[in-house]
Amino acid sequence: MSKEHLFLRALRGEQVERPPVWLMRQAGRYLPEYMELKRKYDFFTRIRTPELATEITIQPIDIVGPDAAILFSDILVIPEAMGVEVQMIAGKGPYLPKTMQTKEDIDNLRVKDAEFDLQYVYDAIRLTKQELAGRVPLIGFAGAPFTIFCYMVEGEGSKTFSKAKSLCFAEPALAKSLLSKITDVTIAYLLKKIEAGADAIQVFDSWSGLLSPHDFMEFSFPYLQRIHDAIRSKVPVILFPKGSDYALKELNDLNPAAIGLDWTISPKKARQLAPDVTLQGNFDPSKLYMSREEIMRQTTDMIHQFGMQRYVANLGHGMMPTIPVDSVKAFIEAVKSYEEL
Amino acid sequence: MSKEHLFLRALRGEQVERPPVWLMRQAGRYLPEYMELKRKYDFFTRIRTPELATEITIQPIDIVGPDAAILFSDILVIPEAMGVEVQMIAGKGPYLPKTMQTKEDIDNLRVKDAEFDLQYVYDAIRLTKQELAGRVPLIGFAGAPFTIFCYMVEGEGSKTFSKAKSLCFAEPALAKSLLSKITDVTIAYLLKKIEAGADAIQVFDSWSGLLSPHDFMEFSFPYLQRIHDAIRSKVPVILFPKGSDYALKELNDLNPAAIGLDWTISPKKARQLAPDVTLQGNFDPSKLYMSREEIMRQTTDMIHQFGMQRYVANLGHGMMPTIPVDSVKAFIEAVKSYEEL
Repeated sequence: MSKEHLFLRALRGEQVERPPVWLMRQAGRYLPEYMELKRKYDFFTRIRTPELATEITIQPIDIVGPDAAILFSDILVIPEAMGVEVQMIAGKGPYLPKTMQTKEDIDNLRVKDAEFDLQYVYDAIRLTKQELAGRVPLIGFAGAPFTIFCYMVEGEGSKTFSKAKSLCFAEPALAKSLLSKITDVTIAYLLKKIEAGADAIQVFDSWSGLLSPHDFMEFSFPYLQRIHDAIRSKVPVILFPKGSDYALKELNDLNPAAIGLDWTISPKKARQLAPDVTLQGNFDPSKLYMSREEIMRQTTDMIHQFGMQRYVANLGHGMMPTIPVDSVKAFIEAVKSYEEL
Repeated sequence: MSKEHLFLRALRGEQVERPPVWLMRQAGRYLPEYMELKRKYDFFTRIRTPELATEITIQPIDIVGPDAAILFSDILVIPEAMGVEVQMIAGKGPYLPKTMQTKEDIDNLRVKDAEFDLQYVYDAIRLTKQELAGRVPLIGFAGAPFTIFCYMVEGEGSKTFSKAKSLCFAEPALAKSLLSKITDVTIAYLLKKIEAGADAIQVFDSWSGLLSPHDFMEFSFPYLQRIHDAIRSKVPVILFPKGSDYALKELNDLNPAAIGLDWTISPKKARQLAPDVTLQGNFDPSKLYMSREEIMRQTTDMIHQFGMQRYVANLGHGMMPTIPVDSVKAFIEAVKSYEEL
């Protein structure tokens, strides 16, 4: 009866007895159980084998006990499905040898039926749902078009993504044609994830914070909006354009189920700018190196500042591999034991 | 008669006929003339030889014509003067083999008279002033204590500086003792730069945007304030805590000559939050890959949005090495030819 889960109720704005909690990158390297699988299977094997993706997705549910699972996967499955090779370089991150530079590059991308290449993701969702057996809801996710665009043009991670951004500025029509194709494939992909059983969708715009408020409205927002419009009637949607607090008002007016926040905005200010939606975040993961007592104190304080209704406790960014498991447990325990003052 | 320069008048809030303009990292790799020196002399030789530092500082004045020079130097001269080895790894950036982790590490740092180790900087300022012969004023700079702290604890550049931040959170008293020592040395250093002839000082807090609003007020702001209080009576001070727009109101209330901005805040919003100071910024350097016409159009539009009084035109971050020189010229030309509409 996933419809009654705390997490989904908070996303729908219903009254809850305490806020739900999960952590971005809760499935991953801080867990010794994950590291064991990582030693045995390479990245793409872990992603593409439904049994492995399912096991990794469920590990944190058993070990640290959050209120939602998020499917272990990667945002760069979208360029892959579009026909672009994605490599994963150990210690460096993703590398796309063929970057998108010209109209021809973009014309050659596969759009129609690209989502059918990602059957292993839908299989992983079905298997995970079966294994979860209703314990917690399952979040599916995608990268936002602007973030996927950044990787497809730049070819690798970057502090500034200046090649990607300069394509936006120098050739906006070309950039938008690529953004639009990414959006089309992402929508088809997310619809199939939902069909397979995803109970909610989070869209990660990891790099939108590199844009000015004006450029965000031109190169990120319209594509987030198209995705949101296409799936909002099916499941709750969480939009997380990291670092784009400047657009909170516009995002609020889109009326997604929730908006994800990093820690560079205070809970009070976020509530002022986005009064109509559930807010999710925004604990600084670097604070998970504090003592257990201090983590619990500051987590409680964060909930107090957000207020416990229309709120999902989370980090403001992904977990770091060196964070102690006990600190994650302390964070989750603080949320689960929260009582309104 | 540097006191009558446009740049200094704008910093003092006096009426100007057009805004002054300079660019962060205007001396550097985008200039073929700089690359020639870079091929001949390594980084530390360029920094430590007053004749070379002077030549590099003046190159952009001759070639692209900004309204102020900024001394070619590095923020990590401060840890060096405190007795910490700083290496520069080609293609990677700074590397500090011995990082600050314990009370003993911090106790062993040199504070008293550390500024005397940086005589080559003061010599470079004197020589540059002589060579400039009053053409434009000379800006001296320092890294903000929090940013220097990030490098001293982390030992190298990082996307998250999570080691440095976790020292702040886990051992705030220890972190503050290091921040305080850095502040002491920085103040002594800046006073000597001013004595040598620096006409204005910019303090770069490159990483303060990694802090939450609350933590910025705890681990960055008090040290910026101490530096500002110590030198404000001597020369105008520009504070540039990159990404910390959330503290614009508090920064405005410090009443520095100017606040530097990146492009993630709109001019209108910045004016609302910081109505009492000169604002500097905030052109996205990735826009310098646009056509000459578009650069001029968008630069003019930026000035129009800020208004031409109490404003210094600049980028929102440092120049990138692959930006065409002609694009920099177009940016400067647009500012110089600006006429109020």
